[in-house]
Amino acid sequence: MVVGGRGGPAKSGVMRTRVIPQQVIARKRDGHALSAHELEGFLKDYLDGHVGDDQMAAFLMAVYFRGLGDEELDVLVEVMLHSGRVLERGGAGAPRVDKHSTGGVGDKVSLVLAPLAAELGLVVPMMSGRGLGHTGGTLDKLESIPGFRTDISLTRFDRILREVRCAMIGQTEEIAPLDRRLYALRDVTGTVPSLPLITASIMSKKLAESLDGLVLDVKVGEGAFLSGIEEARALARAMVGVGGARGLSVTAVLTAMDRPLGRTVGNALEVREALGCLAGGGPGDLREVVTELAAEMALAGGVVADLAEGRRRAWEVLAGGGALERFERLVVAQGGSLTLSQAGYGLPAAPVTRVVAANREGVVAGIDPHALGYGVIPMGGGRTRQDQDIDPRVGFEMLVAVGDLVSRGDPLAVVHGSSRDDLFIGARVVHEAVTVADGPEAAPLPLVLERITA
Amino acid sequence: MVVGGRGGPAKSGVMRTRVIPQQVIARKRDGHALSAHELEGFLKDYLDGHVGDDQMAAFLMAVYFRGLGDEELDVLVEVMLHSGRVLERGGAGAPRVDKHSTGGVGDKVSLVLAPLAAELGLVVPMMSGRGLGHTGGTLDKLESIPGFRTDISLTRFDRILREVRCAMIGQTEEIAPLDRRLYALRDVTGTVPSLPLITASIMSKKLAESLDGLVLDVKVGEGAFLSGIEEARALARAMVGVGGARGLSVTAVLTAMDRPLGRTVGNALEVREALGCLAGGGPGDLREVVTELAAEMALAGGVVADLAEGRRRAWEVLAGGGALERFERLVVAQGGSLTLSQAGYGLPAAPVTRVVAANREGVVAGIDPHALGYGVIPMGGGRTRQDQDIDPRVGFEMLVAVGDLVSRGDPLAVVHGSSRDDLFIGARVVHEAVTVADGPEAAPLPLVLERITA
Repeated sequence: MVVGGRGGPAKSGVMRTRVIPQQVIARKRDGHALSAHELEGFLKDYLDGHVGDDQMAAFLMAVYFRGLGDEELDVLVEVMLHSGRVLERGGAGAPRVDKHSTGGVGDKVSLVLAPLAAELGLVVPMMSGRGLGHTGGTLDKLESIPGFRTDISLTRFDRILREVRCAMIGQTEEIAPLDRRLYALRDVTGTVPSLPLITASIMSKKLAESLDGLVLDVKVGEGAFLSGIEEARALARAMVGVGGARGLSVTAVLTAMDRPLGRTVGNALEVREALGCLAGGGPGDLREVVTELAAEMALAGGVVADLAEGRRRAWEVLAGGGALERFERLVVAQGGSLTLSQAGYGLPAAPVTRVVAANREGVVAGIDPHALGYGVIPMGGGRTRQDQDIDPRVGFEMLVAVGDLVSRGDPLAVVHGSSRDDLFIGARVVHEAVTVADGPEAAPLPLVLERITA
Repeated sequence: MVVGGRGGPAKSGVMRTRVIPQQVIARKRDGHALSAHELEGFLKDYLDGHVGDDQMAAFLMAVYFRGLGDEELDVLVEVMLHSGRVLERGGAGAPRVDKHSTGGVGDKVSLVLAPLAAELGLVVPMMSGRGLGHTGGTLDKLESIPGFRTDISLTRFDRILREVRCAMIGQTEEIAPLDRRLYALRDVTGTVPSLPLITASIMSKKLAESLDGLVLDVKVGEGAFLSGIEEARALARAMVGVGGARGLSVTAVLTAMDRPLGRTVGNALEVREALGCLAGGGPGDLREVVTELAAEMALAGGVVADLAEGRRRAWEVLAGGGALERFERLVVAQGGSLTLSQAGYGLPAAPVTRVVAANREGVVAGIDPHALGYGVIPMGGGRTRQDQDIDPRVGFEMLVAVGDLVSRGDPLAVVHGSSRDDLFIGARVVHEAVTVADGPEAAPLPLVLERITA
């Protein structure tokens, strides 16, 4: 499948060994296993510009349908990881542990978890992503804090890690640039929900963080990229496997995403809710997921004896205010400012809001996270292409949860918009997302479904 | 699946209705039927530049796996056809009939067939393509004739049609530009062998020619894009169906492509062979396919009573030299020059050649057209990207056919190259392509397999 390169009729004497891109694509399309040489060549030719985005997009779609074998996955992770820098371990010897979520709607867990885990004695070098399709992204949420910079240098990232023990940045140019390019491409080409592509994307970045332990929050349900529990398990196992093969201990926790997590969807609204949780309050479901993941991180880092101790210590830290204080230090260190004494904490607020009321009585049988997640896009709070700006102010504040009884006219949600058009769109989205029925329908998933480790 | 467009936080008041490209891709990926509105929107947004090549490539790969329903195919043909001009009928009322081949290796049929059908009383407004992957293209072959222009204006095309009754051009900018863009994209993204995409590509161009009849040469076997007979039948039926729905009578003839057609593969070499056929000679398999297709065209145009009459008249015209004379007029009208009195006809010739000999005795059990077709690429005679130049001089001249007995050291083929490197590559290709075995293996396909019409 590899031939000497060629030019036009006037050929030079130099014969380069390059893959023929469409042949590699066709072989994957037809279900053949690519040799390490072929796949590595294809990926490196893409990095060099000899394989185009169009060709890579077709390849990614073929991978969506055909998957990748273990060896192919290993080559992909390897080329991604070494397409950029691998971080040096800093942080005075404390265990380096990170958490990664496969992405959901209303998932503001990272904002609470990073400072909480740091309070528990870990170093948390967190590299997060932006909103993608119907799910939000931690970077977008953080950037709704006035002045907050997520694009800081790795040198400054290291310094903040030493001083605050947690820092939250985006994937810099230097880290796994191949992953960054593929991620942006997948985003716009309908090739996001592919198990091996998700696995390679996550693991290449996390391996670049030089961690002692990694906790994965694998979302399950309509609002997740992979909605079924079997797919979630397969993803968890693939990531545990890739980590294990490279000496990184990985624990995956499957958590519910059949409804939004917490009560808010939309960037500034979610930061507000995370601050509530950091202060020991906030909605119970958010607190439960946060403490479970904090306990896993603490266990992975060896700072607690078991999960029960981890959960107890996490609760204590949240209740005691230490995590909130550490988050404030992180915000200041990254250039941001919050006014915790003020209503709204100094976060940007939408100019117009509208309460959406139930148009019948009954039980809230379901809140569709997918509908809410996609619903913020036309309001400007999400993006359909990776390079779009977003409006941090818009979103949804749910006033009901699954199982609540409502009467006709009871408020279901508040829509936060930048214009009256947004409120109109948002109200339609709320009615589409919230099912009010005569009685409860399918039982919601337990928040924490299962735990998968090596 | 359609939402109002949006900009960044500062939104304009204008709400445009645009599809979300990655949602359309994802719906096709997941096997849903796209609405006419969705698919038309996606295609038009691509024409407008709002859907990128990367997104279209992923979409095409999803179509490869999921197919298109009849309504989707209809929308695709419609948008392709009306993305450009539809030709006016000229030619003094004579029936307009064209032939299209799905593409093979050594397929120089069009060069003989266009002037032959014109001699039979038809007008043949032939628009052809370039080489694609392992198959050659009629335009590339024609352009190996010194001075020959395939990029002439539609006005000049019409004039030549009136004067010579046949003309052979490339798809101009004005004809089905959407098809042209998709064709180029498919070429480099491994999405060529998709039945609905092939159907739409062919039929949109042929419908733009305002024909009275169309004959399709659907190739079957290893050297065809769709190798199996079932796939070939399905493609034939799809094209007959699309034509019928728009009032165009289409007849498909399935012909063998389990070995190359004729003895030559490579552009100038194939023109030389076509000239031999036009002069009443040439290899028997080429003559048989040419006369069968000419008979079908004559029948479709109503200038003969049945296929038997058509075949007989085609033989007579070839033997009488009328087709060769008409081809010369066509060449002159399109700016080219040939010297028929001279050896090699004034076609460009390769500077070096090498005879490749059998390294064992036995029966020629097979000649793999795929290997020969891909084999010309590293010698510069084919392309891996649509924008590459090709060297018309290089290629293979087979000295044996399937079933021939050979002794060790007997010549199998002559490699024509631009350099000694080419000869080395070419010799390897010949040995890969030609199977010499103890006895005959699978019987070759009959040249003309079957006929499918409405």
